[in-house]
Amino acid sequence: MTTNLRGILAPALIAVTDHFRIHQERTIGHFKWLLQNGCDGLVIFGTTSEANSFSVLERRQLVEQTVEAGIDPQKLWIGTGCCALSDSIELTRHAVQIGCRGVLTLPPFYYKQLVDEGLFRYFDALIEGVGNDRLRLYLYHIPPIAVVQFSFPLIEKLITRYPGMVAGIKDSSGDWEHTRQLIERFGRRDFDIFPGNESNLLAALRVGAAGCISATANVAALSLQGILQSWPNPEAEDRQAIVTKIRQAFLGYPLIPALKAIISKVRGEPAWKNAQPPLLPLSNSDQESFFSKLSAAGFQWPAFGNEAPA
Amino acid sequence: MTTNLRGILAPALIAVTDHFRIHQERTIGHFKWLLQNGCDGLVIFGTTSEANSFSVLERRQLVEQTVEAGIDPQKLWIGTGCCALSDSIELTRHAVQIGCRGVLTLPPFYYKQLVDEGLFRYFDALIEGVGNDRLRLYLYHIPPIAVVQFSFPLIEKLITRYPGMVAGIKDSSGDWEHTRQLIERFGRRDFDIFPGNESNLLAALRVGAAGCISATANVAALSLQGILQSWPNPEAEDRQAIVTKIRQAFLGYPLIPALKAIISKVRGEPAWKNAQPPLLPLSNSDQESFFSKLSAAGFQWPAFGNEAPA
Repeated sequence: MTTNLRGILAPALIAVTDHFRIHQERTIGHFKWLLQNGCDGLVIFGTTSEANSFSVLERRQLVEQTVEAGIDPQKLWIGTGCCALSDSIELTRHAVQIGCRGVLTLPPFYYKQLVDEGLFRYFDALIEGVGNDRLRLYLYHIPPIAVVQFSFPLIEKLITRYPGMVAGIKDSSGDWEHTRQLIERFGRRDFDIFPGNESNLLAALRVGAAGCISATANVAALSLQGILQSWPNPEAEDRQAIVTKIRQAFLGYPLIPALKAIISKVRGEPAWKNAQPPLLPLSNSDQESFFSKLSAAGFQWPAFGNEAPA
Repeated sequence: MTTNLRGILAPALIAVTDHFRIHQERTIGHFKWLLQNGCDGLVIFGTTSEANSFSVLERRQLVEQTVEAGIDPQKLWIGTGCCALSDSIELTRHAVQIGCRGVLTLPPFYYKQLVDEGLFRYFDALIEGVGNDRLRLYLYHIPPIAVVQFSFPLIEKLITRYPGMVAGIKDSSGDWEHTRQLIERFGRRDFDIFPGNESNLLAALRVGAAGCISATANVAALSLQGILQSWPNPEAEDRQAIVTKIRQAFLGYPLIPALKAIISKVRGEPAWKNAQPPLLPLSNSDQESFFSKLSAAGFQWPAFGNEAPA
């Protein structure tokens, strides 16, 4: 019986070739760097990974290659939520079979204005379809993008039906009050709540969050880890203030291209800027103004390239 | 050199088994019935087909089985728009290779607040990736569900880059003024506009629409065909009034389950009510009130089962 993964998790960026394929070597190199530079674990194929821009086969293959490259699957959650139930079952079963610690699962996001009972039946069929007690499924609540949401009654019903197996939620609502209410209502049970943004990380930890899963962990996990390690102490407030200020420098820029631009610059690899359409690489003028704002906010440029060799 | 498919197209319903698979026999039987009862063509794997609730493999297989069952691929458009560019290329290439007349393609619908240039690059990469001059690609504009939209400048840019190949649009905005403007602005070029709802079919035909692609064609294509055949004549107005009144009976009920309930009842096949989660079959009480409203509106229950044997 192992505990669940908690702490600072990076929703890991995926390097893309000029022909819109996964650049395996760069991507897995980034994963290793993250685990050696402040991350307790990784989420592969969340929104920041451009998950839905890759086929099911491409997604399975990268997970296999990651584990073959020596990354411990117990440090991994895999994003597995698709519009098609059969796809979600396939990806989730695959992740559990490989030994991944958990899965982070979007609701089916094509149809809108759904009733909770339809979403419940989807997750019920998914969990029964996977049929493995080792499954730890985390709900991926990201209404600004997926639009489809997990209501409190739906969460309640899923936890009650699958206690321990429906193991937590990533709250990317961007609404601190929603995160606070989730922790208050569900945090005392066997259910972990992770804010999807570091702007309220300290406040969330102080009321019982299990950690944080934020896109910026791709370039600044050590800062978030600093807050996690010091949260009972007053100094944590200074750390939070710095982190919040840096986060504000991202406002007005598309987040995924902005993060890729940072890696591209530090690694000196122009192709790291590539994104899957419909996302676009950051324009040169946006990059220039973004980098100025980052530096003005006191951003510590990450030391990419310091990871141990494979 | 063939003309493009025009007229009344049904976005065809898909029969689902109790285990959430495609019921091939029932589905293809329905396709044949539609083509013998008022439809000029079919769209397989639009929203009404629950397209995104099936895997790429399931979608390819059904298209193959449909053609193997004797349905002329020149009467088919295939829904091919996925979030992943590689999936959209695979499905589109497959449809063209099989000889299907066209494809109806959603924009990638996971990420929101996209810039037009990102969507243009997606479609550019899709069309180049398919690399076949026989491609006739119809844009699938359905903002109430996909959220992501085709703006007029984006349509202009796509038509200009791929004249004749980007062959038209299904406008499921539900906004007649938007349909009217599309026809006014783009209808004089080699570009067909299909309203996605029959409520303004007559008005649309009179200003130059190429036909109609509406979910209700699954159970009432003959009525729509009647309007298409008579639109220059005053009697068409009476036909439109009847069709509009029947459409209003659907208000307040989930459209796909409501249509499946009609087929289930007439065919005497309870399993026709099945839908893929997150959609739910119509409840018994909803079905009762819906059927009452339909009958009160003068709905002609379709004569399912009159199709010629395979």
